[in-house]
This record gives sequence, structure tokens and C-alpha cells, in this order.
Amino acid sequence: MKSTAGAPRRKVLKHSAAKAGLPPGALVYVGEDKPPLATRISIIDYDEHGVHERELARVEECLQFTDKATVTWINVDAIQEPGLIETFGKVLGFHPLMLEDILNTDQRAKIEDHGGYLYIVLKMLEWKPGKGEIEIEQLSLVVGPNFVISFQERPGDFFDPLRARIRDAVGRARKLGADFLAYSLLDLVIDHYFIVIDRLGERIEQCEDEVMTRASPATLQTIHDLKRELIFVRKAVWPMKDVITSLRHLDTPLIAKSTGIFLRDLQDHIVQVIEGVDTFQNLVSDALDTYLSTVSNRTNTVMKVLAVFSAVFMPLTFVTGIFGMNFRDMPPLEWSWGFPGTLIGMGVIGVLMVLFFKSKRWL
Amino acid sequence: MKSTAGAPRRKVLKHSAAKAGLPPGALVYVGEDKPPLATRISIIDYDEHGVHERELARVEECLQFTDKATVTWINVDAIQEPGLIETFGKVLGFHPLMLEDILNTDQRAKIEDHGGYLYIVLKMLEWKPGKGEIEIEQLSLVVGPNFVISFQERPGDFFDPLRARIRDAVGRARKLGADFLAYSLLDLVIDHYFIVIDRLGERIEQCEDEVMTRASPATLQTIHDLKRELIFVRKAVWPMKDVITSLRHLDTPLIAKSTGIFLRDLQDHIVQVIEGVDTFQNLVSDALDTYLSTVSNRTNTVMKVLAVFSAVFMPLTFVTGIFGMNFRDMPPLEWSWGFPGTLIGMGVIGVLMVLFFKSKRWL
Amino acid sequence: MKSTAGAPRRKVLKHSAAKAGLPPGALVYVGEDKPPLATRISIIDYDEHGVHERELARVEECLQFTDKATVTWINVDAIQEPGLIETFGKVLGFHPLMLEDILNTDQRAKIEDHGGYLYIVLKMLEWKPGKGEIEIEQLSLVVGPNFVISFQERPGDFFDPLRARIRDAVGRARKLGADFLAYSLLDLVIDHYFIVIDRLGERIEQCEDEVMTRASPATLQTIHDLKRELIFVRKAVWPMKDVITSLRHLDTPLIAKSTGIFLRDLQDHIVQVIEGVDTFQNLVSDALDTYLSTVSNRTNTVMKVLAVFSAVFMPLTFVTGIFGMNFRDMPPLEWSWGFPGTLIGMGVIGVLMVLFFKSKRWL
Amino acid sequence: MKSTAGAPRRKVLKHSAAKAGLPPGALVYVGEDKPPLATRISIIDYDEHGVHERELARVEECLQFTDKATVTWINVDAIQEPGLIETFGKVLGFHPLMLEDILNTDQRAKIEDHGGYLYIVLKMLEWKPGKGEIEIEQLSLVVGPNFVISFQERPGDFFDPLRARIRDAVGRARKLGADFLAYSLLDLVIDHYFIVIDRLGERIEQCEDEVMTRASPATLQTIHDLKRELIFVRKAVWPMKDVITSLRHLDTPLIAKSTGIFLRDLQDHIVQVIEGVDTFQNLVSDALDTYLSTVSNRTNTVMKVLAVFSAVFMPLTFVTGIFGMNFRDMPPLEWSWGFPGTLIGMGVIGVLMVLFFKSKRWL
Amino acid sequence: MKSTAGAPRRKVLKHSAAKAGLPPGALVYVGEDKPPLATRISIIDYDEHGVHERELARVEECLQFTDKATVTWINVDAIQEPGLIETFGKVLGFHPLMLEDILNTDQRAKIEDHGGYLYIVLKMLEWKPGKGEIEIEQLSLVVGPNFVISFQERPGDFFDPLRARIRDAVGRARKLGADFLAYSLLDLVIDHYFIVIDRLGERIEQCEDEVMTRASPATLQTIHDLKRELIFVRKAVWPMKDVITSLRHLDTPLIAKSTGIFLRDLQDHIVQVIEGVDTFQNLVSDALDTYLSTVSNRTNTVMKVLAVFSAVFMPLTFVTGIFGMNFRDMPPLEWSWGFPGTLIGMGVIGVLMVLFFKSKRWL
Repeated sequence: MKSTAGAPRRKVLKHSAAKAGLPPGALVYVGEDKPPLATRISIIDYDEHGVHERELARVEECLQFTDKATVTWINVDAIQEPGLIETFGKVLGFHPLMLEDILNTDQRAKIEDHGGYLYIVLKMLEWKPGKGEIEIEQLSLVVGPNFVISFQERPGDFFDPLRARIRDAVGRARKLGADFLAYSLLDLVIDHYFIVIDRLGERIEQCEDEVMTRASPATLQTIHDLKRELIFVRKAVWPMKDVITSLRHLDTPLIAKSTGIFLRDLQDHIVQVIEGVDTFQNLVSDALDTYLSTVSNRTNTVMKVLAVFSAVFMPLTFVTGIFGMNFRDMPPLEWSWGFPGTLIGMGVIGVLMVLFFKSKRWL
Repeated sequence: MKSTAGAPRRKVLKHSAAKAGLPPGALVYVGEDKPPLATRISIIDYDEHGVHERELARVEECLQFTDKATVTWINVDAIQEPGLIETFGKVLGFHPLMLEDILNTDQRAKIEDHGGYLYIVLKMLEWKPGKGEIEIEQLSLVVGPNFVISFQERPGDFFDPLRARIRDAVGRARKLGADFLAYSLLDLVIDHYFIVIDRLGERIEQCEDEVMTRASPATLQTIHDLKRELIFVRKAVWPMKDVITSLRHLDTPLIAKSTGIFLRDLQDHIVQVIEGVDTFQNLVSDALDTYLSTVSNRTNTVMKVLAVFSAVFMPLTFVTGIFGMNFRDMPPLEWSWGFPGTLIGMGVIGVLMVLFFKSKRWL
Repeated sequence: MKSTAGAPRRKVLKHSAAKAGLPPGALVYVGEDKPPLATRISIIDYDEHGVHERELARVEECLQFTDKATVTWINVDAIQEPGLIETFGKVLGFHPLMLEDILNTDQRAKIEDHGGYLYIVLKMLEWKPGKGEIEIEQLSLVVGPNFVISFQERPGDFFDPLRARIRDAVGRARKLGADFLAYSLLDLVIDHYFIVIDRLGERIEQCEDEVMTRASPATLQTIHDLKRELIFVRKAVWPMKDVITSLRHLDTPLIAKSTGIFLRDLQDHIVQVIEGVDTFQNLVSDALDTYLSTVSNRTNTVMKVLAVFSAVFMPLTFVTGIFGMNFRDMPPLEWSWGFPGTLIGMGVIGVLMVLFFKSKRWL
Repeated sequence: MKSTAGAPRRKVLKHSAAKAGLPPGALVYVGEDKPPLATRISIIDYDEHGVHERELARVEECLQFTDKATVTWINVDAIQEPGLIETFGKVLGFHPLMLEDILNTDQRAKIEDHGGYLYIVLKMLEWKPGKGEIEIEQLSLVVGPNFVISFQERPGDFFDPLRARIRDAVGRARKLGADFLAYSLLDLVIDHYFIVIDRLGERIEQCEDEVMTRASPATLQTIHDLKRELIFVRKAVWPMKDVITSLRHLDTPLIAKSTGIFLRDLQDHIVQVIEGVDTFQNLVSDALDTYLSTVSNRTNTVMKVLAVFSAVFMPLTFVTGIFGMNFRDMPPLEWSWGFPGTLIGMGVIGVLMVLFFKSKRWL
Repeated sequence: MKSTAGAPRRKVLKHSAAKAGLPPGALVYVGEDKPPLATRISIIDYDEHGVHERELARVEECLQFTDKATVTWINVDAIQEPGLIETFGKVLGFHPLMLEDILNTDQRAKIEDHGGYLYIVLKMLEWKPGKGEIEIEQLSLVVGPNFVISFQERPGDFFDPLRARIRDAVGRARKLGADFLAYSLLDLVIDHYFIVIDRLGERIEQCEDEVMTRASPATLQTIHDLKRELIFVRKAVWPMKDVITSLRHLDTPLIAKSTGIFLRDLQDHIVQVIEGVDTFQNLVSDALDTYLSTVSNRTNTVMKVLAVFSAVFMPLTFVTGIFGMNFRDMPPLEWSWGFPGTLIGMGVIGVLMVLFFKSKRWL
């Protein structure tokens, strides 16, 4: 199996030296070093009666949408440009520390109530079948009274089904407000947690089978990789529980009462994900224990084979050594039945040894 | 022993790719791929004065029972058909998210108060002696003012003793309301937890004996299987504690005061089950530790045998080698007592070696 | 040491198949299969002025005592007969679920306030020096305003010192009410926890000494047994903390204010017992770790011996092999100093090897 | 290193068989069996204006001091005599259960508010450099409005610096009341926890160095001893946190408001001690893990040496064996370059083997 | 890699013997024994309109600044002189216990509200690239209404960026009060936690790679060092969470409402640091487990090689031994095809052995 630890490897903490010493609220993109990606601002503006989709060239154009009563979803891809985020801050009046958090892609999932808007930051997990690895990307949501702004680290996301539902007005998609839109985004993110968890589950089962039937050092590498990935998935997923709980109990006009039952559903899901990760961690720990025991068992088996061979052949070889000595005066060598007798004697010794080890259940 | 890990193996999480991207409340059966089973709706309607049993062809027929003052137990087997569940939802006015949960057979045990009815979802554990494995099945209970609807994943259940008690009006069976019926169902489910736990306990004891007397790699497999099963049983049983506690403290007219003491009893039972599972997990961990120590011990023993043989015969063989050399000028070979002297010398060396190892308690 | 795991072995859970499907409150004795023991009801009735002791033939005779103002202690030995317990229930008006709990000897320690009386169930631990094992027996106490009924699984108990104090009116024994009597019983039970814990402590110390000085597979068995027993003792003792705490804070006229300070004392004791068990579990875990390390150490030592012997004698034997070859044309064989030279050479090789291993501290 | 486990070894629990069955409040000294020590009652009576020191012959003499407004510190050494403690109880009106606790030197640290006086029991830890072990002694403090009585198990203590400060009226020593005296005693006790912890820390560092550089079975013994001692130190120290917290928040006129800040300081100290013990336990666990890994490493190294020797010399010896056979018709033996050729061939085999193992990094 | 455990090694606890017995509030510097460092008091006094920087010769000069409305930051380097701290206490009226805490550089991070000023003590972690180790230094902050005094153990710190921001009036640096200055200091300290954590992260990744590809005893040393350092970093960082939380919820006029949001940000950061340390501890534990498994694997491989060599060559050598015996009457030796036949036979045995081990997957 391809080691998948590469990508998350660099992820433990990235709030790094670059930021130390800067004044609080300084906007610096903290992420992996990569060629700057083109920023893209796309808008979906809808109400029950219609949808309007556009790409924006300038941040200021947002205002024409956020000032209307319709629900507006502004999606910003590739947030590497501090200037852009700063403009957002100015145009829409966001708090500088929040802007700093959007750019710092090493946030722990959290929710902040800024009065006129909510700030939710969380991790998207996506399984990349091509690369066979889990990609972790930060998503920042700003939820206002009639808009949701989503900031993503990289272009490309898994929100297309939601876009389609909005376009086609499926179910409640266009009937409810910005809070329902935010819920729908969270729901999709958590649905992808399940997919990731599912794939990990398959790999864990394969790994368990391997441990039992054909454990090799490569199995150890797999176990190690799985443990590592579970640590990172857990780190990404665990704080979501608090986020959703806070969201449910937040005393804010931004969340309609009717959205409450959906959030409860979300909470059930995230608890399920966390329990799944826990179970997986137990299973992998178990697999490692079993692996170790298996190796011990094998070493024991090998030792037995070695001991049996040594115990059988060492005495026999010694006997041949005796009769291979060159003393002038060795009467046994002259006896006519000496050779066959010796052979028979050695046969008896060999058989006795084998029987002895059989009785000890080493054979 | 037959490995029993097969069935629960596929169970960690099944809220899978199929659902991601669907709108919330979409009804999809999430369970194991199996040929669709025939759905069956059976009804037991009773009060103190009589019982009425029937099979329903259409969901709408329910209404004639739920509208009466009598207690009605509607049991639905094999819930794979989303259409059927949807019809239930429409006919009886259930919340779509609850219908989704009924079909998603990968729920964590929970209780939801929907005002006019309670929704309880939990896991039934059943020991299948034929297959030697634990079957996990999801049970959804909808408890209304005068009815209980139970949704089961598969046909066949262990509720027949309760049906018999209702038919024969044993004890309180027909005197109390729908809440007592729900309690009776929960009680039966938890009674079967005890049976499962009991069987696991027997296997753990066998396994402990094996570890102590005749540990083999198969024992390791057994320990691994038991650990695995306990993880899944724990996962199924653990959230039941919260469910029962919530049920006891729920502020709802659906649960009569008098049922409280029975629920307390139920809570005692579930705590006992959880404690049992904990104890078992400790015992199995212990067994693994002991297994590992046993293997280490054995390797040590084998090593000693090997070392003793080597230490005894290597010097002796060396001596024979010396007198087997072909130097023209080797005076000892000419001595008449050379051969017997050498034999005696080698005997002394051998005895000394054996005594040495005896003194080190390796023999 | 005699394995003492035998008796508690069968104890993890016994709320078994026999009960599944029965209506709640059904009275079935759940305990070990043993020839039915004769039930015995004995009474001690006392106040400050006198004592009255009797054996009762029929349950109904209780009433003449419980109706008096004197304190009455009714002790019931060997509760296997459901009929007897049922009669108690009828005569004294006890709740059916409580009667069920009395018969189910697999209860977790708990306390229930039934208004007119308290129900306390707990485990008695007794060290059986003869058998070298810990006996676990369930004790049910029903504490009324002026009576205490104690239900024991088996005849024979350790309450005789209390009986003697009542007879002889030692200290407060006869001056206080039924609550003090109940306290005195609990105190005796917990005193015996200390004794059991003490004996375990001695065995643990022996075991620790063994691990350090003469660890053998039998030591491993002992460690395993101790771990097992501690798991069961912990299981019996742990819930007692909650029981005593509840008892202290119970809002009931059945417990006099003045008894409070005695209950606090009891709570201190049970905390001490639990801490002792915790400490023991740590010590035994430690002993296992040390055992494993000791075995590793020994294997390492054995390996070194083996390696040294091999490394010394293999090259030497090889040399003898060279000069034992039968080539026609082997000049060294003709040299007159060939044999002594070879011997000296081999001696040098041997000494060098030994020095080499000395320098590596393998010798 | 001298094993220091001797003294605490006998300490896990001593509330033993001797007490079981006695009525509550019975006064029995529960401690180690030792020749009875002479009891000594010494008094320091002081206020801002002067100090008065004396030894008392009879308990009743206390009253003349406790009835005065001056602060009185009564120190009782060697409390083995139940009679003495009983007298104290009668003279000063103490509760019988408290007297029992003073004599039972196996108490967990706790604080009890008896209205007119506080009872504090705790463990003194003292490092005995001579014996190289930690001595654990119980200290009972009874804090009244203007007196403190300290009961010690054995003569000799580390309170002399406090006595000196009182005599010399250093700092606040003589300006504040009995509560400050009690605080000063607690402060000294906790200061000695630091000393003990410090010594343990030094031994742990030595032990860590040993593990890394010259691990031997003696190191294992040391690790085991340290683990054991930390378990006992933790057991003694841990409950002190609750004691100090309770003391701070106690609603009693016995503790002046102004003493609060000193108690907060004490609380900081005890938290620091507990954290230190935690850190040490982690370090020692670590050391054990490292030790085990080191032993594994060494075994691996020894095995490699063994394998290399075997792999090099077994084939060579086999070759000499071939040419040492005595077949009449062995053409190679007749070849003139047979012997040197064989030697060269064996040299090549040996070199190849060595190169092979070098390439595998076994050499 | 250079062992970096040296410096923190001596740090577990230093509240040592020197202090035991002294009266509470006695001022003793508790730190590492080093040549006394020159104390330096430097002042930055600023408001929106200007900055004033100076070094003070005498503590009393502070008063002219603290009495003004401007914000004053007094930084004291190298606090080894108790006299100096005492002077501070007298001049500014600080509590003696607080002064004691400033000098005792073994404090746990904490915050104390003394009414007119706050006392915050915490640990600065600094990565010293030259020495390749983490330096831990205690920082005490006294936050008054218009001043902050910072006491450092050693000269030199990482606050220069803040000084520069104050000089250049960057951002809010000079607009806000002393509470913001204190926040800025804390922010810088926590930023350096991230740097330290980052470096540790890099070393952990290197270590993980090493374990997987070229594990050696040096790797074990590295793992051990990392574990050790994480224990100390955790000890330094963990209590900061409580400090910041207390700071946020403190009911004091010293902290302006507007500073609250910055403190929340700080809290997010410290939680992130702690989570990072947790993750690292998991990763390092994992690495140790993997290391152990790797060593087991290798030993197993070595054993197999050894067993195969023995199993192949022992029988062959035995055969040569047979035909090397010197019996007068050994018919096989006379057979003309004896020698080649024996060679072929031995070849067959060798090949069979190899095939056998191939079938067992040992080769």
C-alpha cells in the first residue's frame, strides 16, 4: 500500500516563526508553501422564486447582494492573498482577529458569535482515491442574517450537490434562510467525514486480516500509518462536537428555531463519527498488539526448529567426531560391527531426541 | 473455535457514500447488501378485556387501531423499503429526519422527544448458537400515547414471550399502557444483552484456561476476536445508559409515573451489563498480557535448551576435532591410554557443564 | 500456591437465560447451582432493657416484633426459596421488584428508598483461609423504622461479634435504633473488606519478592490470579462508595441525625478500601511489567552464553577441521612443530575471543 | 543501590483483623509492631509578649493552658497508649471516633470540622539519608480556638525550626493565632514533601542515566523500587489537596480571614508536589519502556553476532568435513593444488559471508 | 543528534532543602547555581503621544513613572538578588508571598488578583538553535492600573519586536492601556510556544522516519529525549490554559472589556499548543511502539537466518562426520561411487532443506 502519511505529515502545527513578533491581527497566510493559486469569488444568490449565479471581479460587488433580502452564498477559493481578505474585512466590517483566523489555516474548529455575524471554522476531510490519501482543508464560514461566506484554502470542493439542489430548488433548498444554507454546508462536510472514516475502516479491516494471516514489516508500516492518520482525523473532528453544540445553544437571531432539529441531527452524526474514530483507534491498537504477539509467536517457532536441529545433530556429530579421532590405539575401530553399530546407535539417539521434543510439543 | 468476527466486521460505520450529497431527510436504507426481504406489518391490539391480532396489508389500516383507546403494538419487520417508511410518516405524521433515522441502521442508541411521540432507537444483540456469533440488529421504537411501533431490520425476533404474556394476560401485561409495553420491549432487549454477555463470559473463561495451559497461535486469534467483539458490544450497549436515564427524567405525559420504578430497574440492569463488559475487557486484556508473557517464557525455555546443548557439545566436538587432525607428529595419538583418557576427559567436561547449568537453574 | 480463581470464576454475570422472557418482578433465585440449603429465620429483638432471641418457623410471626417499639433484627439465611421471599413481601408489604432483587444474587451494590423502608444490597467478602480463596456473598438489608431484615445467600456469617455486643449491651449497641443496627452491619462488612484486602496485600508482597528473586511460570500464574481477584473485589467494593454517600445524604426519617457521623466514618473506610485496591492493582501491574522485563533479561543472558560458546568454539573447530582434511599434499602436516603450533594458535584465538566478549561486557 | 522498599513495604493497609468485630469507636493502636515507645507531652505556650515551654506529666495539666488566651501548642509523641488518648478525649471533650482515628495510623489525609475544633490528619514524609529510605509517619492535628495539639507516631520530628522561630519571635511567628500555628506546621510538612520529592528526583535521574548507558538487572530493581515508592508517596500526598482546599473554604471561626492567603500558598505548593509526583511517574514509566527496548536491542545485537559466526563457520566447517572423509576414491585429495585451493575457496566463502552481512548492516 | 535533555534535566522541582524551615514569605532565590548576573531595570514609558526609554539605577525611581497616567513597562532582568525584589515590594507595596513567588523560579503558571494589581507567573520557552535545546525561563508579570512590571530570570528576551512596535507606534501598540501591554507580552510568550512546538515537530518527524527506515539504539535515545522534553513542555504549558481562562473571567477594573476578545484569541492559541503537545505525545508513544516492533521483527529475521543455516549445514556436516570415521571396516568407503554419491546426496539434502524453508516463507 502506498504510504499516505505524506500529506498530513506537515500538518501538526503551522502557526509558525513567520508570525511570532507581529502585532495581533496581522494578516499572514499560514499554510503550505505552494505556488500562489488564483483567487476566485463566486456568488449564488437565491430565494424561493429564482437563482442568480455570478463570479465577482471585485470584493465590493458583494454589497449589492448582501444588502438584498435574498439569501447569498459567497464562496471564496484559494485564500492565500491577505489583501483580498483585508478588503473583505473593510467592505463588510469584519473583526481583524477573525480575518487573521481565516488566513491562519491551522485553526482548531471553533465558533465565534460576533453579534451581527457568526464565524465558524472547521476542517474538511476529503478522501483522494487517486493519491490514496486524506486531504485536510480548512473551511471558514461567516454566517450573516442573509448571507454565508465560505473561505476555502484550495479551489475545488464537494459542494456541487448542494449547488445543484439550489439551482433545481430540490426540497427545502431554496425555501429557508442563510442559517439553513450554513447547516447544509456543515452537513456536507460531515457527510464527507463519514466517507473518509469508511475508507479508513476498509483499510483497517484489510490490515487486521493481514496481521492474522501474513504479517510482515510492511504490515507494521500500515499500522503505523493508520495510527498516524487516525490521530490527525481525530484532531480535526473532535472539536466539531463542541462547535455544533455551541451552535445549537447559541442565543442569536441568526439561527432560526426551526433549524434546531437539523442541528440536533448534525450533532448525532458528529458523535457517530467520533465514536467511529474511537472504535478504529481501539481496533488499530489491538492490531498492533496482535502483530507483536504474532511476531513473538514466530520467533518462538523459529527458535524451536533451531533448538531441535541443534539438539539432534550436535550429539550425533560428536559421536562421529569420536570415531574420527586418530589415536593409534582405539579398539572400537577394529571391531567388525563397529560401523553398523555406531550408525544404529546414532539412529537411536536421533529418534529419542525427536520423541523427547514431540513429548514437549515442540514438533 | 469458529471465528465469529465475520458478521460484526462490516459494522463499524455504514452511513456511507450513498448518502453524501443527498438533501437532509432523504430516505435511503443504509444496511448490508442483501436480497430484499418481504416487509410484514403485524398488529397486537389489547386492553384488559381482550386481545386482537392481525397482519396488515396497507399502512393506512393502522389508523383504525391508533385512534382507539386500546393499546396497539405495531411491529414492522424488514424495513428495507423506503416507500413503506415514507407512507408511515405520512399516515401518522412523523418527522422526516426521524424516518431517515429509522432507515439508517447505523444509528447510535438515542431517544428523541417529538412532543406527541417518543422515538427510541437501540441495538438488539442476539447470540446465534448455530453460527456461534453475535447478531446486531437495529430496533426503532415509536411510542405514542396508546401505541408502540417497532421497526426491525430483519424478520424474526425474541419478543414471543411478551406476545404470549399479552395473549394470556399474565401479570401486568395487559393492565398497563403503551409506556409499559415499550418498557417490556426494552426489558427483553436488555435481557438478551445479558445472554450475549454470558456467552462471551464463557468463551473468555475458556480462553483464559487455554492461555494458561496450552496457549497457541489459535488462542491469540481467539483473544483478538473477543477483543473485537467486546468493542462492538460496548459500542452498542454503552449509549443505552444515557437513553434509559433520559427516559426516566423525560418530562412527558407519555410516560406514566408508575412506570418510573420499572425504568429504574432497567437502569440498574444496563449499568450491570456495562460493568460486565468493562470487566470482560479487563479480563481479555489480561489474557493477552498473560499470553505474551507465556510466549516469552517459552522462548526463554527453548533458548536454555539450545544453549545447554551447544555449551555441552561444542567443546566436546572441538576435542574430537583436535585428535582428528592429521599431523604427522602428534605424540598424544601414540599414547596407549590416549583414547580412553580423552573419553574420560570429555565425560568430565560434559558433567561439569551440566552441573554448571544446574547451578544456574537452567536445567 | 493454590489457585484461588476457582470460586469467583463463575461470578461475572449470572442474570441469565433463565430469566429472559419472564415478566418483570418474577421471583427466580439466580445463583450457583447447589443443593438447596435449609432456610432459617432468626430474630433478635432488643431495647435498652433487654434482649429476646428466637428462631421463627413462619414468616408471619415477624409481625409481632415489627409492630413493637423495640429494635428487631431478622436474619434470613439461605434465600433460595422464592416462596419464602414472596411471603415476606406479602406479610410486610414489600415491592415486587425489590423481592426480585433479593433473589437475584448478582446485584450491583445499591440503595433504594421505598418510603417506608430502605433497601440496601451489597457484597460480603470473606477470606476462607482453609480454601485459600475469597468468598463473595450477597447481603440484602431492609431497614425499617424499628427493624432490620438481613437476607443472606448462605448460612454462616461474621456477625457474631455484633450479636455478642447486643446480648452484653456493650457500648451503644442497645441504646440506639434500627439505623444504628444497620450501620453496625455495614461496618462489619467493610471491616471484612479490610481483612480480605490485607490477605491480598500479603500475597502481592510475596509475589513481588518472587518476581524479583525467582520468577517462574508459576509466578505468572499467581500474578494473573491476583489481577483477576482484584478485578472482582473492585467490582464488589467500588459501588459501595456511592451507596454510603447516598445513605448519608438521604432525606429520610429512617436515619437519625446522630448516625451521620458514623456513616461519615464508614465512608472514610470504604474510600480507604478502594484506594487500597487501586494501589494493589498498580502494584500487580508493576509486578507483571517487572516479570516480563526479568524474562527478557534472562533470555538476553542465555543468548549471550550461547553466542560466546559459539563464537569461541566454531572457529576452533574449523581449524581442527582444516588439519583433519585428507589431502595428500598438505605441507603443514609434515612440519614437526605443526601440532603444538596449532594448539597454541587455537589457544590464542580462544583467549582473544574471550577478551573480546569481556570488553563487550557479555561475560 | 540499597533497596529502599523495605519500610513502606508493610504499609498498604493496616486497619486489620485486630479491629474487625470491635464496636465503633473502640480505641486500638493500629501500627507496626514495635517495642512500646515512651509517650511524651510537651507544651509551648506563647503570645506576643513571651514564651513558656514545659513537659507535662499528666494530661489534665493541659487545661491550665487551653483555658488561657495565649496560643498553646501541645505536642504528643508516640501515641501507642490508647489510655492516654482516651484521657485526652475525656479532659478536652473530643469525639470518640476522632480518638479512634488518631490511634489508627493508617488514615487517609482528611479534615473534619467538629464545631469547637478541627481535626486534620495527614502523612509526614521524611527522607532518612542514613537508611536511604522514606519514612512515612502519621500526624494528627487538633486545632482549637487557641490551641493546637499534634499527635505523632514516633518521637523526633522536623518541627524544630518552627520552635526556634517561636522562641525568637521571628517574623509573624508569635503575632498570630492558633490557625497560623497550624498553618506553619502544615507548611513544614509540605516543605518536607519537596525534600523527599527532590531526593526521588535525583534517584530517577541516576536511574535514567543508568538505563541509557549501563542497564543491568539491578537497574530493573531500581526502577521497580522507584515505581513502588512513587505509588506510596502519591497515596500519601494526593488527598492533601482536598484537605487544603476544604481548609480554605471551611466556614469556621477557627480560621482567621488573614490566614487565607497563606493557605492559598499552601495549596499552590501541594499542587506543585502532586504535579512533580505525576511527572516522576511518567519519567519512571518511560525509563521502564526504555529499559525494555534496550534489552530487546541487546538481544538483537547478540543474535546478530551469533548468526554471523554460525553463517561464516558452518559452511567452512562443512567444507573441511568433506575433505576429511575417508573414501578410498576421492580424486580431489590427490590433486597437488587441492589443499591451497580449498583454503583459498574457504577464504572466499568467508569473505563473501562477511560482505553479505555488512550489506545487511549486521556488522 | 545531540542530547537536548541536559538543560531541562535539572528542572523537575527546585523548591528545595534550602527553603525548608524558613518562615513563610522568606525571600530566597531558588534557581540554578550560577555566577550572579548583573541586575538591570529598564523602563519604557509611553502614551499615544510619545515614548520615553531609560535604565534605572534605583528602584525608587519607578515611582515617578507609575504615578503618571502614561503606560509604563518596567522590565527587570536577572532577579537573583533578593534585596532588589524586597525593595520593589517596599516601594510599590507588594505582598511578601508574591515577592517570594517571584524569586522562586520553580512556580507553576498561575494568576493572583491582589486587588490593586494582578500577579501572573508563567514559563517562557525558547528554542536555542545553537545548543539545540529548549530553554525554560520563568516570567513574572505584575499588572497595575497603568504599569506592567516583568521580572525575568536571565538577561535577554524575545520582546524586542514589541519594543519596536511601541517605539514606532505600530497598530494599537501605543493606543491601549497596561492590560493590552500585558496581553502583548503573553501573546509573544505563546507565539514562542508555537516555535518550540514546531521544532519539536520537526524532530519528531525525523525520528519517525528513522524508526521506519534505519532504527538504531540512537533512535531509542532520541525517542526517550523527545518524550522527556514533551513531559516538561507540557508541564510548562498546561497550566497556562487555566491562567488565561481566569484572566478572561476575572472581575477586575484592571482589564478593559475591549481586551476580552484578544484574550479569547490567546485562549484559542494556548488550546492549540496543548493539543499539539498531546498529538506529539501520541506520535512519540507510537514511534516507541513501532520501534519495539521493528526490533522484534529484526530479531525474528536474524533468527530465521540462523535457523536456516543451522538446519542446512548441521545435517550435512553430520554426514561428512560419518564418512570421516576411522572404522577399519566401513564398506561404503570402498565403493567407487561413494564420494560422488555422498556429494550428490548432501546436495539433495541441502536443496530439500532450502525448499522446506521457502515453503515456510523463512527465505
